[in-house]
Amino acid sequence: MEEKGIAVCVVPTADPHESEYPGAHFEARKYLSGFTGSAGTLAVSGDWAGLWTDARYFLQAEAQLSGSGITLYKIGEKQVPELAQEIRERLPEGGVLAYDGRTVNRRLGERLREAAGQKNGSVLLTDLPGQIWKHRPPLSAEPVFEMPLSLSGEARADKISRIREVMEREGAQIHVVTTLDDIAWIMNLRGHDVPCNPVFFSYLVIGLDQIRLFVQKQAVSAAIRESLEEDGVILEAYEDFYGVLPELTAGKTVYLDSRKANEQVFGCLGQGAEVIDRPNPSELMKAVKNETEIANIRLAHRKDAAAVTRFLYWLKKQRERGFAGVTELSAGEKLEAFRREQEHYLEPSFETICACGANGAIVHYTASEETNTALRPEGFLLVDSGGQYMEGTTDITRTIVLGPLTAVQKKHFTAVLKGMLALGNARFLYGCRGVNLDYLAREPLWAMGLDYRHGTGHGVGHLLNVHESPNSFRWKCGAGGADSAVLEPGMVTSDEPGVYLAGQYGIRTENLLLCRKAEENEYGQFLEFEFLTLVPIDLEGIDWTEMEEKDIERLNRYHQKVYETLAPCFSGEELAWLAEATKPFCPEKEKRDGRENYR
Amino acid sequence: MEEKGIAVCVVPTADPHESEYPGAHFEARKYLSGFTGSAGTLAVSGDWAGLWTDARYFLQAEAQLSGSGITLYKIGEKQVPELAQEIRERLPEGGVLAYDGRTVNRRLGERLREAAGQKNGSVLLTDLPGQIWKHRPPLSAEPVFEMPLSLSGEARADKISRIREVMEREGAQIHVVTTLDDIAWIMNLRGHDVPCNPVFFSYLVIGLDQIRLFVQKQAVSAAIRESLEEDGVILEAYEDFYGVLPELTAGKTVYLDSRKANEQVFGCLGQGAEVIDRPNPSELMKAVKNETEIANIRLAHRKDAAAVTRFLYWLKKQRERGFAGVTELSAGEKLEAFRREQEHYLEPSFETICACGANGAIVHYTASEETNTALRPEGFLLVDSGGQYMEGTTDITRTIVLGPLTAVQKKHFTAVLKGMLALGNARFLYGCRGVNLDYLAREPLWAMGLDYRHGTGHGVGHLLNVHESPNSFRWKCGAGGADSAVLEPGMVTSDEPGVYLAGQYGIRTENLLLCRKAEENEYGQFLEFEFLTLVPIDLEGIDWTEMEEKDIERLNRYHQKVYETLAPCFSGEELAWLAEATKPFCPEKEKRDGRENYR
Repeated sequence: MEEKGIAVCVVPTADPHESEYPGAHFEARKYLSGFTGSAGTLAVSGDWAGLWTDARYFLQAEAQLSGSGITLYKIGEKQVPELAQEIRERLPEGGVLAYDGRTVNRRLGERLREAAGQKNGSVLLTDLPGQIWKHRPPLSAEPVFEMPLSLSGEARADKISRIREVMEREGAQIHVVTTLDDIAWIMNLRGHDVPCNPVFFSYLVIGLDQIRLFVQKQAVSAAIRESLEEDGVILEAYEDFYGVLPELTAGKTVYLDSRKANEQVFGCLGQGAEVIDRPNPSELMKAVKNETEIANIRLAHRKDAAAVTRFLYWLKKQRERGFAGVTELSAGEKLEAFRREQEHYLEPSFETICACGANGAIVHYTASEETNTALRPEGFLLVDSGGQYMEGTTDITRTIVLGPLTAVQKKHFTAVLKGMLALGNARFLYGCRGVNLDYLAREPLWAMGLDYRHGTGHGVGHLLNVHESPNSFRWKCGAGGADSAVLEPGMVTSDEPGVYLAGQYGIRTENLLLCRKAEENEYGQFLEFEFLTLVPIDLEGIDWTEMEEKDIERLNRYHQKVYETLAPCFSGEELAWLAEATKPFCPEKEKRDGRENYR
Repeated sequence: MEEKGIAVCVVPTADPHESEYPGAHFEARKYLSGFTGSAGTLAVSGDWAGLWTDARYFLQAEAQLSGSGITLYKIGEKQVPELAQEIRERLPEGGVLAYDGRTVNRRLGERLREAAGQKNGSVLLTDLPGQIWKHRPPLSAEPVFEMPLSLSGEARADKISRIREVMEREGAQIHVVTTLDDIAWIMNLRGHDVPCNPVFFSYLVIGLDQIRLFVQKQAVSAAIRESLEEDGVILEAYEDFYGVLPELTAGKTVYLDSRKANEQVFGCLGQGAEVIDRPNPSELMKAVKNETEIANIRLAHRKDAAAVTRFLYWLKKQRERGFAGVTELSAGEKLEAFRREQEHYLEPSFETICACGANGAIVHYTASEETNTALRPEGFLLVDSGGQYMEGTTDITRTIVLGPLTAVQKKHFTAVLKGMLALGNARFLYGCRGVNLDYLAREPLWAMGLDYRHGTGHGVGHLLNVHESPNSFRWKCGAGGADSAVLEPGMVTSDEPGVYLAGQYGIRTENLLLCRKAEENEYGQFLEFEFLTLVPIDLEGIDWTEMEEKDIERLNRYHQKVYETLAPCFSGEELAWLAEATKPFCPEKEKRDGRENYR
C-alpha cells in the first residue's frame, strides 16, 4: 500500500459473480484476516484494520480475530459505523482507496466512491491482495456437466426465449448475466467451481439474436460444446470477457442487475451504453420450479430424508454407549457418509453445521479441529446440513436431544417447533409475500420475549445454490420488498426459526416448503405449502403442555407423512425406531390414562 | 362542455384538502351521478359517462346507477381499465380535458395530464360542475373551537417546533399544509366544516419564523384569534390562499406532500420554488398519541362502550317484541340517542352503517328511506358506527344476532371473531408494520377459503378523522410500504375483519387497538395492543366447537375487562344482562357437564 500510495484498501468476501461462497481463489479476506465466516469485509489502513460482519458471526469473529489487532464491527448493532462511513473517517484528505473492482458490487462501489469523494480522494481498482498472496489457489476449472430435459423440464432455447420476451418488453438490446446460478439455470449446465454451489465460472451475454457464453474452455467437453453450438451459443474464453464487453455493449441498451454485477462490469460497458437496472429475468424464472423440477425435488428430499433419518437413529444408538468417541466433526462425517450412500448424491449444499451445547448458539458455527467438541448425553445437538443431488438441493436442520433437558430447554424447543409448523401450515391468497407470513414462525418466540436474529427462510435452488432469491421469509420490509417477492406456486423456501442463548445452547428446526395451489374461488387463488423435508422431529424435546390442539394435529399429520414416505426405506430395528419416532400423540388418550406427558 | 370546447370532464370526489368526506359544497359528483357512496370519480364526454368506484361500493353503485346511462367501472377487477387509461381512449386527438384543479391531487393530475398529452390534448382547470349547479350549498364556515392542553397534551408552539426541526433537517424553508386534520392537530383547534370530521376549512403555511393560517375569518372568535396571535400565527383569509401562495413560495424550498396537495396548489407555487415531496411531518406526529391523548381516548371509549352496550341491551329487548317497528334507520337513531346521552358527545365520526340481512353484505351500506329494512328475528344486524367526543374518536362494529342462525353463519361469525382477537393479542418486536400482522386477522377466514375485500384496519384520530394515516393493517405491500407505517407505541388502529356474502349477509367485528410497550430486552422493544373498544361480543353468534383454547381465553379475558369497565355504568336488569353477555366460557366445566355447546 505504501509503495503504491494507497491509504485504505477494502477486501470484501466476493468473487466476480457475487457468489455467496467465493472459491478458494477469491478467499483473500479469509487469507488476510484469519476470520473464516462466510460473510465479512476487511478494510486496512496504515495503522488500523477493521472487519465488518453480521450477527450470525459475531461470536465466531470475536474468537477468530482475538489478538489479531483487527477491530470487529458488528453490522446492525447500535453505534457501529457502516463500512463506507468508517472509510470516510479513515481516509486522509485526497487519499487513495483501493479495491479489486471484480469483487465489489455496484451498490457498495457507489458508497465507497462517495466516501472517497467526500475526502477529495480517488479510487483505484486493483487486486492488491492478489499481489502479495504467495500460494494463491488457482481459479477452479472443473468439468461442466449437462442437465438433461428429464431433470430441468425446460430446454435452454425455451428459457432464452422467455428471457428475450422480457428484454423486448423492457426495451433492452443486450442482457449481461454475471451470476453463476442464473447462467447455470439458463444454460441447463452445472459445474463444481464454487464450493457447495454446482456452478461454473462464466459470464453470459444474451443479445436479441446472439448468445455468448464466456467460460473456461478446458471445462467444457466436446459434446457439451456441440450441444451449445446447436442452440446458437457462441463460446468465448472466460478471461476475454472484460476485454470484449465494451464492444458488445457500445451504444446499446443493456439489461443488467446492479445488485449483482461488479464494478468492473460497469466500468467496461461500451460508450453510450444505457443500463436498464432490473433483477435478472432468470432470477424469478428459476425460483418458480416447473413440474419436472418439482417431481425431482420431491425425489431428492425423499433420499435425503432417508439419509438424515438413518443418521438420527445412529445418533440415538450412540447415546446408549455414552457417545464414546463421537464428536461434532465425526458426527458430521457420519451424516455425510449416509448421504453418500444415496444415488446421484454429489456434495453438501453448504458447510455442515454440527454443534453441540453452547456451540449451537453460534448461528453459522462450523466445527474445526480447534473447536471440535465431544458429544455428551446432555442438551442438544444442532445439525444444519444439506445435499446436492442430481434431482435437487436439500437443506434441513434438526435439533437432536442428546440427554436430559431442563424445563426451559423444552419450552424453547417447543416454541421453535410450533413456529415452524405454523408457517408450514399457512394458507393464503396469491399476492402474499414473505413479510406477510414471517410472523407465524416468530409468534411463539415473541410471545416469550425471544427472537432469532436471522431471516425465517430463504429460497432454495434446483441442484443450484441453497440460498436463492427473490423469495424469502423476513419481517423487516426492505426497499420496495425486493427481498421478499410475491410467493408463487413452485417456489421452494426454507422455514427455520430458532432460539440462540449465547454460552448455553442453540435450537433450530428447519423444513423446506414448496408453495403450491390450493382452492381458487371468487376471492382469488389460495396457496399453501407442502413440507418437502420429511424427517422426524425429536419428540424428546417437546413440552406437550405447550402444544395446543392445533400444534399437535400439525405434528401428527407431518409425522404420519414422514412415516409413510420413509417406511419403505427401512426395516427391522430401524423401522421400529422410525415408527416410534413418528408416533402420533393423542391428547385424549393421554388424558384418559392420566399421564401428563407423552413419555 | 360544448360551449367551452371541452371533450371530457372529470369530477372526482374531493374537496381542496383531500378530505375523505367532502362537504356538501364539494359534492358535485354525487349531484351529477346520483351515486351516494363516499368514493368514486365521474368522467363525462359528449356521448358517454363513466363512474369508477372500489369494491366497497360495487353493489351500491350498481343499484344507484341503474338506468342512469352511466357505466360502472369496478376498480381492481380484471380487465376494468383505469380512469386515465379510459380517458385516453375517449379523448379525441387534440381534445380538451377539464377538471377543477382544487379537487384533483397531484398524482391523479399527473396521470390525467399524461393521458391528455398522449392525445396531444390540453388540460383546462375549471370548476365546470359549479357553473351549472343551481342550488349549490355554500362553503361551510362553522365556528372553530379550541382543544385545551388538558385534551391535546401538547401546546401548538411545541408542535410547530417539532415540525420546524423536520423542516430544517430536510432543508425546507417553508411548509405548506393543505390537509385539514393536520392543520387542526397542529393548531390545537377543531371545527365542524366536514361532516363527521371535526375540522375547519383552512390552509397553513409554516415558515422558519412565520406561520400563516388561512381561515374563514367569520369562523374564528376573538378569543381564538387572540390566542393564535400570541403564538405568532398570522391570520389570513381562506379565499386569499391561492393568490398569496406564489409570493410566499417564490425561490423557496417548499415541503409539500404531493399525495395530499391538489393540482391548483402546485400550479400556484412561486417562480423557482423547489418541492421536497414528503409526507407532512404532522402525519406521523399526530398518529402517535401522547399520554394525555391516550388517557382521554380511553375515557371516550368507556363512554362510547356504555352507549353501545345500552343499545345492544335495548335491541335484545326489542327481540322479545319481534322487533315491532324497529328498522335499520330507527335502530341507528336509537344508537345515536344513547351516544347523545354521554357527556361531551359531539357527533358521529362517520355515517352509521346499520344493515340487516343481505344489506350487511354491502360493505359501506347506509340505510336510506328507499332501502330501509325492518328488523326481523333472524340472522344478523351489522352496526358499524362511531362517535366524536371531546376526549376522542371512536369506531366500533358489532354484528348482533337477531334470531336463529344457520351452522354456517355461526362458523363465519366465529372465524371473524377469532381473527379479530388474534390480531388484538399480537405481541411483536418494534419495527413491525401492519403488513406483518394483517395475516392474523385473515387466517381463520383464509383457512375456510373466505376473504374480505378491504383492509383489516386504519389509523384513528384523536377527536379527528376516523381514517388516519400512516398506520394501518393491510396485507398488500404498497409502494415502499407508505400505507403501512412501522407501528409505534401510541398509535390507534382499527381491527375489523369481516365476511360478506352478497345477497345473504355480512359480518364484521371491530375493536380499536392502542399500540403500547411490552417487555424490552436484548432482542429489542416488544409491543402489544390494548383493546380500547370495550363492548360485549354477541355470544349467540359463536360456534364453540370452532373456538380453540387460546381463542376462548382471549374472549374471556376481553369480556372480563368489558364487564369490569362497564359494570359501574349499569344497574338492575341491564347490569344482570351485562354479566350474562360477558360471562366467561369454561370449556372444562362444559365438558364435565356433558354439554357440547355453550347455550
